[in-house]
Amino acid sequence: MRMYDLIMKKRNGKPLEKEEIDWMISEYTAGRIPDYQMSAFLMAVYFQGMSEEETLNLTMAMAHSGEMLDLSGIRGIKVDKHSTGGVGDKTSLALTPMVAACGIRVAKMSGRGLGHTGGTIDKLESFSGFSTEISAEQFEEQVNRIGISIMGQTADLAPADKKLYALRDVTATVDQMSLIASSIMSKKLAAGADAIVLDVKTGSGAFMKTREDALALAEEMVRIGNGAGKHTIAVVSDMNQPLGNAVGNALEVQEAIATLRGEGPEDFTELCLTIGSYMLVAGKKADTPEEARAMLRRVIADGSALKKLEQFVEAQGGDPGQVRHPELLPAAAIREPVLAPMDGYLQSIQCEEVGNCSMILGGGRETKESELDLSVGLILHKKTGDFVKKGEPLATIHANDREKAAQASKRYLAACRIGEEPVQRPELIHAVIR
Amino acid sequence: MRMYDLIMKKRNGKPLEKEEIDWMISEYTAGRIPDYQMSAFLMAVYFQGMSEEETLNLTMAMAHSGEMLDLSGIRGIKVDKHSTGGVGDKTSLALTPMVAACGIRVAKMSGRGLGHTGGTIDKLESFSGFSTEISAEQFEEQVNRIGISIMGQTADLAPADKKLYALRDVTATVDQMSLIASSIMSKKLAAGADAIVLDVKTGSGAFMKTREDALALAEEMVRIGNGAGKHTIAVVSDMNQPLGNAVGNALEVQEAIATLRGEGPEDFTELCLTIGSYMLVAGKKADTPEEARAMLRRVIADGSALKKLEQFVEAQGGDPGQVRHPELLPAAAIREPVLAPMDGYLQSIQCEEVGNCSMILGGGRETKESELDLSVGLILHKKTGDFVKKGEPLATIHANDREKAAQASKRYLAACRIGEEPVQRPELIHAVIR
Repeated sequence: MRMYDLIMKKRNGKPLEKEEIDWMISEYTAGRIPDYQMSAFLMAVYFQGMSEEETLNLTMAMAHSGEMLDLSGIRGIKVDKHSTGGVGDKTSLALTPMVAACGIRVAKMSGRGLGHTGGTIDKLESFSGFSTEISAEQFEEQVNRIGISIMGQTADLAPADKKLYALRDVTATVDQMSLIASSIMSKKLAAGADAIVLDVKTGSGAFMKTREDALALAEEMVRIGNGAGKHTIAVVSDMNQPLGNAVGNALEVQEAIATLRGEGPEDFTELCLTIGSYMLVAGKKADTPEEARAMLRRVIADGSALKKLEQFVEAQGGDPGQVRHPELLPAAAIREPVLAPMDGYLQSIQCEEVGNCSMILGGGRETKESELDLSVGLILHKKTGDFVKKGEPLATIHANDREKAAQASKRYLAACRIGEEPVQRPELIHAVIR
Repeated sequence: MRMYDLIMKKRNGKPLEKEEIDWMISEYTAGRIPDYQMSAFLMAVYFQGMSEEETLNLTMAMAHSGEMLDLSGIRGIKVDKHSTGGVGDKTSLALTPMVAACGIRVAKMSGRGLGHTGGTIDKLESFSGFSTEISAEQFEEQVNRIGISIMGQTADLAPADKKLYALRDVTATVDQMSLIASSIMSKKLAAGADAIVLDVKTGSGAFMKTREDALALAEEMVRIGNGAGKHTIAVVSDMNQPLGNAVGNALEVQEAIATLRGEGPEDFTELCLTIGSYMLVAGKKADTPEEARAMLRRVIADGSALKKLEQFVEAQGGDPGQVRHPELLPAAAIREPVLAPMDGYLQSIQCEEVGNCSMILGGGRETKESELDLSVGLILHKKTGDFVKKGEPLATIHANDREKAAQASKRYLAACRIGEEPVQRPELIHAVIR
């Protein structure tokens, strides 16, 4: 087989066979196909697309390019959850204890993130002493004992995807549906879960800006997951404004704790209930999403979801006292309100800009080496559709540096559009693909 | 400027500015843009194309990426000629002495070729002692004295094209009109001629398989040439069967000599007269192609064209006796006729296969290091449209190895299609773009 012929075939709009894709991915991972041929191939894919079958074959080839996690030592149906990411997306923090309290085994590998806030692991490190550097044995034992564990990604999962993504990133071939879908799904499949619930974000703060693109990606990923024999469900949810009110690391942990107490923001609570209910259905703990939702409400009401978070934090060396007393979590020295310059309805919040504010304050990483400030961020007091009076706070900036606070404050204000006309609150759940 | 942005721009169908193309080509030539970005860009060009302006800018940027030859020391209008190549294409061998005999200065840099026969330089080396390794001073002096010289390519002409072509060759991005046209024209512009006559081949033995593609390429190149301020004319000629009757190195030299004597095959003579007449017009030696054609016929009839070849060969160290006695040129030991298996009209000759026969015999180079056998090749006795009787020779194989001869003979026979229906001889000149 020659890579040249595969480039030509794709360029001419012909589908690649499974054997061709397998060969290409294994040779590329082994460094025997040069980047310049692969990037030409990727650009041809950008223009010619890939069939459903090709996309599934590509995903499987990438999933098998490195270690495939074996979770068979963990009893029950393992349900994984993945979000395409957005601003204020602390869903895993609240959702995993909720579903674990309902009997779903959560065995998650997680990463640190580049972006406006840290990843789930960074956020969890807001608890003093918390560590995800645990052994595979502890991981397995802990999931079997208390139903939940999150460990740092140590295994070499889907190295082909890692290499391909780095190449796509510098050759303007990132935004192609089959490539995006196979990239996400290859990692999920390698991570060994039995069922997968996907949260595909759409809007100004998401990678998929339009509802149509998000729907298409969700459908593509569900097809791949089911094609690979894993029960897969996708929820398409709104990211035209931050999710919930908190953006930042410790601030988001606080909001997750409040949500587990039944005191969380409406939109965030609703998203957790929606995704959680499909996780329970996929994990066969409930027959219908309605039944599942009632179970989730119960574990919030009776305190068992919050208790599960406490257990989880304690099992991984963290201070469970901070779950009961979130005011003990890292806190910023400066709190500065961003005041509304006029009366009116909040028309929109440019979501990506809110992420940038968090970044400016030190809440996110620009490079892998950046140090995070877990205490900083923003708390939103008004969301799209709310009425605000002149001089009322739109948000509060949590900062450790006056200059950065002023900068973030200015940018936050510019990101908000206030107008006289009342506007609808954006719909939170756009679609469920199952 | 960032290459990433230029890839994205082209991918999204937007034209690149002159400054962007200049920057891209100079950075790529200097090794500061990696191949993997350039190949993604080239594939985007394959799908999105380039405007006329972009193509001209790309050509100029590549032409100026290395040395620009200065032919100002040579008096008169320097007319260069270029063929896109085909089987049995020995045009330069006969044409350059013809136009030189009419007063056009031929100052040509030429290369050795990969392919079914050698390049012009290889063919000229059929004359014992002939050398193109001459100094720039000798080159200039010789053109001024006898009107013709061909030297091996020593200068670093259009290195950007060389680098880009090598990349296109392994990334399935060769066959894009703007890229083909700019590649050819950048070298022609760097080679310093004042006017350019192009011979664009079309048919089964040419790179451009269809008349439409050949016309489009011819038009594109004429636009570029004229856009660069060089009088440019393109002839689109047929390559559905070999040109003339001889295929091979010394065999083609013999046929060129016969043509200069007025005894050449009809099609080859006609092509020389056509291209030659446009060279005379471009070089302002004649006002009309008709007048030019009469001049060319005269230099054949009075022997001055043949005399010019003799002078030329002698001036570069070759044996002029071999021009007068072509039977002294390298000759193969074995001559084996390929006999017609039935009566009928020769419907077609798969032209590329004839090239492969020459290759098998040792007449061409598979890699840069291959040694050529100048004596081997084929002489065609029947061309498309001719009637042949069973047992009559279709062609004669000239070989130095029995096994190779048998192999070539078999393939030649398979390349010929004989049928009962009379067929038209293919039209030789499809179009002239000026």
